[in-house]
Amino acid sequence: MRKDKKVRGGVVLRPRLRVMCHGETALGPGRVDLLEHVAETGSLRAAAARMDMSYMRAWTLVKTTNRWFSRPVVEVVRGGKTGGGAKLTAAGWEVVGLYRRMEKQSEKAMKGTWGKLRKLLHG
Amino acid sequence: MRKDKKVRGGVVLRPRLRVMCHGETALGPGRVDLLEHVAETGSLRAAAARMDMSYMRAWTLVKTTNRWFSRPVVEVVRGGKTGGGAKLTAAGWEVVGLYRRMEKQSEKAMKGTWGKLRKLLHG
Repeated sequence: MRKDKKVRGGVVLRPRLRVMCHGETALGPGRVDLLEHVAETGSLRAAAARMDMSYMRAWTLVKTTNRWFSRPVVEVVRGGKTGGGAKLTAAGWEVVGLYRRMEKQSEKAMKGTWGKLRKLLHG
Repeated sequence: MRKDKKVRGGVVLRPRLRVMCHGETALGPGRVDLLEHVAETGSLRAAAARMDMSYMRAWTLVKTTNRWFSRPVVEVVRGGKTGGGAKLTAAGWEVVGLYRRMEKQSEKAMKGTWGKLRKLLHG
Protein backbone atom coordinates (compact mmCIF):
# COMPACT_ATOMS: atom_id res chain seq x y z
CA MET A 1 0.00 0.00 0.00
CA ARG A 2 0.95 3.62 -0.24
CA LYS A 3 3.51 4.58 2.35
CA ASP A 4 3.51 8.01 3.91
CA LYS A 5 6.40 9.87 2.44
CA LYS A 6 9.21 10.56 4.82
CA VAL A 7 10.12 14.12 4.14
CA ARG A 8 12.96 14.93 6.47
CA GLY A 9 14.04 13.69 9.86
CA GLY A 10 10.74 12.03 10.72
CA VAL A 11 8.63 15.03 9.72
CA VAL A 12 5.81 14.01 7.39
CA LEU A 13 2.69 15.53 5.92
CA ARG A 14 -0.20 13.11 5.90
CA PRO A 15 -3.19 14.11 3.80
CA ARG A 16 -6.17 11.96 4.67
CA LEU A 17 -9.09 12.20 2.29
CA ARG A 18 -12.49 11.26 3.59
CA VAL A 19 -15.65 11.15 1.52
CA MET A 20 -18.65 11.84 3.71
CA CYS A 21 -22.22 11.03 2.73
CA HIS A 22 -24.83 12.55 4.99
CA GLY A 23 -22.41 12.64 7.88
CA GLU A 24 -21.14 9.08 7.46
CA THR A 25 -17.87 7.93 5.95
CA ALA A 26 -18.39 6.48 2.49
CA LEU A 27 -14.70 6.23 1.69
CA GLY A 28 -11.48 6.97 3.55
CA PRO A 29 -7.88 5.78 3.83
CA GLY A 30 -8.80 2.59 5.69
CA ARG A 31 -11.48 1.50 3.27
CA VAL A 32 -9.28 2.18 0.26
CA ASP A 33 -6.43 0.17 1.82
CA LEU A 34 -8.90 -2.65 2.40
CA LEU A 35 -10.07 -2.54 -1.22
CA GLU A 36 -6.48 -2.73 -2.42
CA HIS A 37 -5.77 -5.69 -0.15
CA VAL A 38 -8.86 -7.40 -1.54
CA ALA A 39 -7.59 -6.79 -5.06
CA GLU A 40 -4.19 -8.23 -4.16
CA THR A 41 -5.31 -11.25 -2.18
CA GLY A 42 -8.63 -12.13 -3.79
CA SER A 43 -9.94 -12.83 -0.34
CA LEU A 44 -11.73 -10.66 2.21
CA ARG A 45 -10.38 -12.79 5.03
CA ALA A 46 -6.77 -12.38 3.87
CA ALA A 47 -7.33 -8.67 3.31
CA ALA A 48 -8.73 -8.30 6.83
CA ALA A 49 -5.80 -10.24 8.32
CA ARG A 50 -3.32 -7.98 6.56
CA MET A 51 -4.93 -5.01 8.26
CA ASP A 52 -5.22 -6.67 11.70
CA MET A 53 -8.95 -6.44 11.31
CA SER A 54 -11.60 -9.03 12.11
CA TYR A 55 -13.33 -10.67 9.18
CA MET A 56 -16.67 -9.35 10.38
CA ARG A 57 -15.34 -5.81 10.58
CA ALA A 58 -14.00 -6.05 7.03
CA TRP A 59 -17.27 -7.56 5.88
CA THR A 60 -19.23 -4.67 7.41
CA LEU A 61 -16.91 -2.09 5.84
CA VAL A 62 -17.27 -3.67 2.43
CA LYS A 63 -21.03 -4.00 2.77
CA THR A 64 -21.51 -0.36 3.79
CA THR A 65 -19.07 0.90 1.16
CA ASN A 66 -20.94 -1.03 -1.51
CA ARG A 67 -24.14 0.64 -0.40
CA TRP A 68 -22.79 4.18 -0.87
CA PHE A 69 -21.92 3.59 -4.49
CA SER A 70 -24.34 3.20 -7.38
CA ARG A 71 -22.60 -0.06 -8.28
CA PRO A 72 -20.87 -2.37 -5.75
CA VAL A 73 -17.13 -1.94 -5.42
CA VAL A 74 -16.42 -5.42 -4.06
CA GLU A 75 -17.99 -8.71 -4.98
CA VAL A 76 -17.94 -11.16 -2.08
CA VAL A 77 -18.68 -14.86 -2.09
CA ARG A 78 -19.25 -15.85 1.52
CA GLY A 79 -18.19 -19.26 2.72
CA GLY A 80 -17.75 -21.95 0.13
CA LYS A 81 -14.66 -24.06 -0.44
CA THR A 82 -12.30 -21.09 -0.54
CA GLY A 83 -13.57 -19.60 2.69
CA GLY A 84 -14.95 -16.54 1.02
CA GLY A 85 -13.45 -15.16 -2.12
CA ALA A 86 -13.66 -11.46 -2.90
CA LYS A 87 -12.68 -9.25 -5.79
CA LEU A 88 -12.87 -5.67 -6.87
CA THR A 89 -15.50 -4.90 -9.45
CA ALA A 90 -14.80 -2.56 -12.36
CA ALA A 91 -16.41 0.19 -10.28
CA GLY A 92 -14.13 -0.74 -7.39
CA TRP A 93 -11.01 -0.36 -9.51
CA GLU A 94 -12.24 3.00 -10.69
CA VAL A 95 -12.97 4.18 -7.15
CA VAL A 96 -9.54 3.14 -5.85
CA GLY A 97 -7.82 4.68 -8.86
CA LEU A 98 -9.62 8.01 -8.49
CA TYR A 99 -8.93 8.13 -4.75
CA ARG A 100 -5.20 7.49 -5.18
CA ARG A 101 -5.07 10.01 -7.98
CA MET A 102 -6.63 12.64 -5.68
CA GLU A 103 -3.97 11.88 -3.06
CA LYS A 104 -1.21 12.38 -5.60
CA GLN A 105 -2.76 15.57 -6.96
CA SER A 106 -3.13 16.89 -3.44
CA GLU A 107 0.47 16.13 -2.48
CA LYS A 108 1.84 17.63 -5.66
CA ALA A 109 -0.21 20.81 -5.27
CA MET A 110 0.89 21.32 -1.67
CA LYS A 111 4.55 20.55 -2.20
CA GLY A 112 5.91 24.10 -2.32
CA THR A 113 3.82 25.34 0.60
CA TRP A 114 4.64 22.26 2.63
CA GLY A 115 8.33 22.95 2.07
CA LYS A 116 7.83 26.39 3.64
CA LEU A 117 5.88 25.04 6.60
CA ARG A 118 8.40 22.26 7.15
CA LYS A 119 11.16 24.81 7.56
CA LEU A 120 9.35 26.29 10.56
CA LEU A 121 9.41 22.93 12.33
CA HIS A 122 12.15 21.34 14.35
CA GLY A 123 13.62 18.09 13.17
CA MET B 1 -13.61 28.60 10.87
CA ARG B 2 -13.46 26.88 7.54
CA LYS B 3 -16.62 24.97 6.79
CA ASP B 4 -16.49 21.75 4.85
CA LYS B 5 -17.78 22.49 1.42
CA LYS B 6 -21.12 20.96 0.63
CA VAL B 7 -20.69 19.52 -2.79
CA ARG B 8 -24.01 17.96 -3.64
CA GLY B 9 -26.81 16.41 -1.61
CA GLY B 10 -24.79 15.91 1.56
CA VAL B 11 -21.81 14.36 -0.22
CA VAL B 12 -18.58 16.08 0.79
CA LEU B 13 -14.87 15.50 0.39
CA ARG B 14 -12.97 16.30 3.56
CA PRO B 15 -9.21 16.57 3.19
CA ARG B 16 -7.59 16.52 6.58
CA LEU B 17 -3.93 17.45 6.65
CA ARG B 18 -1.86 16.23 9.51
CA VAL B 19 1.78 17.11 10.11
CA MET B 20 3.50 14.30 11.98
CA CYS B 21 6.81 14.69 13.78
CA HIS B 22 8.39 11.44 14.88
CA GLY B 23 4.99 9.77 15.02
CA GLU B 24 3.25 12.53 16.93
CA THR B 25 0.87 15.16 15.60
CA ALA B 26 2.55 18.54 15.37
CA LEU B 27 -0.29 20.18 13.48
CA GLY B 28 -3.72 19.09 12.30
CA PRO B 29 -7.22 20.45 11.67
CA GLY B 30 -8.06 20.75 15.38
CA ARG B 31 -4.90 22.62 16.35
CA VAL B 32 -5.24 25.01 13.43
CA ASP B 33 -8.87 25.72 14.35
CA LEU B 34 -7.71 26.40 17.91
CA LEU B 35 -5.03 28.81 16.72
CA GLU B 36 -7.58 30.68 14.63
CA HIS B 37 -9.94 30.93 17.60
CA VAL B 38 -7.07 32.28 19.70
CA ALA B 39 -6.41 34.89 17.03
CA GLU B 40 -10.07 35.88 16.95
CA THR B 41 -10.77 35.93 20.68
CA GLY B 42 -7.38 36.89 22.14
CA SER B 43 -8.03 34.36 24.85
CA LEU B 44 -7.15 30.71 25.21
CA ARG B 45 -10.12 30.17 27.51
CA ALA B 46 -12.57 31.66 24.99
CA ALA B 47 -10.94 29.72 22.17
CA ALA B 48 -11.29 26.48 24.13
CA ALA B 49 -14.94 27.22 24.93
CA ARG B 50 -15.71 27.78 21.26
CA MET B 51 -14.39 24.31 20.54
CA ASP B 52 -16.13 22.63 23.50
CA MET B 53 -12.71 21.89 24.88
CA SER B 54 -11.43 22.23 28.43
CA TYR B 55 -9.01 25.03 29.13
CA MET B 56 -6.37 22.53 30.22
CA ARG B 57 -6.75 20.56 27.01
CA ALA B 58 -6.32 23.72 24.96
CA TRP B 59 -3.35 24.72 27.10
CA THR B 60 -1.69 21.35 26.50
CA LEU B 61 -2.32 21.53 22.75
CA VAL B 62 -0.82 25.00 22.54
CA LYS B 63 2.14 24.04 24.68
CA THR B 64 2.97 20.96 22.64
CA THR B 65 2.40 22.77 19.33
CA ASN B 66 4.76 25.52 20.43
CA ARG B 67 7.37 22.92 21.16
CA TRP B 68 7.30 21.45 17.64
CA PHE B 69 8.09 24.75 16.00
CA SER B 70 11.38 26.61 16.10
CA ARG B 71 9.54 29.70 17.35
CA PRO B 72 6.34 29.57 19.49
CA VAL B 73 3.09 29.95 17.57
CA VAL B 74 1.02 31.19 20.51
CA GLU B 75 1.99 33.50 23.33
CA VAL B 76 -0.01 32.80 26.48
CA VAL B 77 -0.28 34.86 29.62
CA ARG B 78 -1.70 32.58 32.30
CA GLY B 79 -3.98 33.99 34.97
CA GLY B 80 -3.86 37.71 35.64
CA LYS B 81 -6.76 40.11 35.55
CA THR B 82 -8.01 38.95 32.16
CA GLY B 83 -7.99 35.28 33.09
CA GLY B 84 -5.29 34.40 30.61
CA GLY B 85 -4.79 36.29 27.42
CA ALA B 86 -3.34 34.62 24.36
CA LYS B 87 -2.33 35.71 20.92
CA LEU B 88 -0.79 34.33 17.79
CA THR B 89 2.83 35.20 17.22
CA ALA B 90 4.13 36.16 13.80
CA ALA B 91 5.22 32.53 13.40
CA GLY B 92 1.70 31.44 14.38
CA TRP B 93 0.12 33.57 11.68
CA GLU B 94 2.53 32.14 9.14
CA VAL B 95 1.81 28.56 10.20
CA VAL B 96 -1.97 29.02 10.01
CA GLY B 97 -1.67 30.78 6.67
CA LEU B 98 0.48 28.07 5.13
CA TYR B 99 -1.79 25.31 6.45
CA ARG B 100 -4.94 26.93 5.02
CA ARG B 101 -3.16 27.54 1.75
CA MET B 102 -2.26 23.86 1.54
CA GLU B 103 -5.92 22.96 2.09
CA LYS B 104 -7.00 25.24 -0.74
CA GLN B 105 -4.27 23.98 -3.05
CA SER B 106 -5.26 20.41 -2.28
CA GLU B 107 -8.96 21.00 -2.92
CA LYS B 108 -8.30 22.85 -6.14
CA ALA B 109 -5.98 20.14 -7.44
CA MET B 110 -8.44 17.36 -6.67
CA LYS B 111 -11.52 19.09 -8.02
CA GLY B 112 -11.77 17.38 -11.39
CA THR B 113 -11.04 13.90 -10.05
CA TRP B 114 -13.41 14.42 -7.13
CA GLY B 115 -16.15 15.32 -9.63
CA LYS B 116 -15.62 11.93 -11.29
CA LEU B 117 -15.64 10.02 -8.00
CA ARG B 118 -18.70 11.88 -6.81
CA LYS B 119 -20.64 10.72 -9.82
CA LEU B 120 -20.14 7.11 -8.74
CA LEU B 121 -21.79 7.80 -5.39
CA HIS B 122 -25.47 7.91 -4.54
CA GLY B 123 -26.95 11.14 -3.31
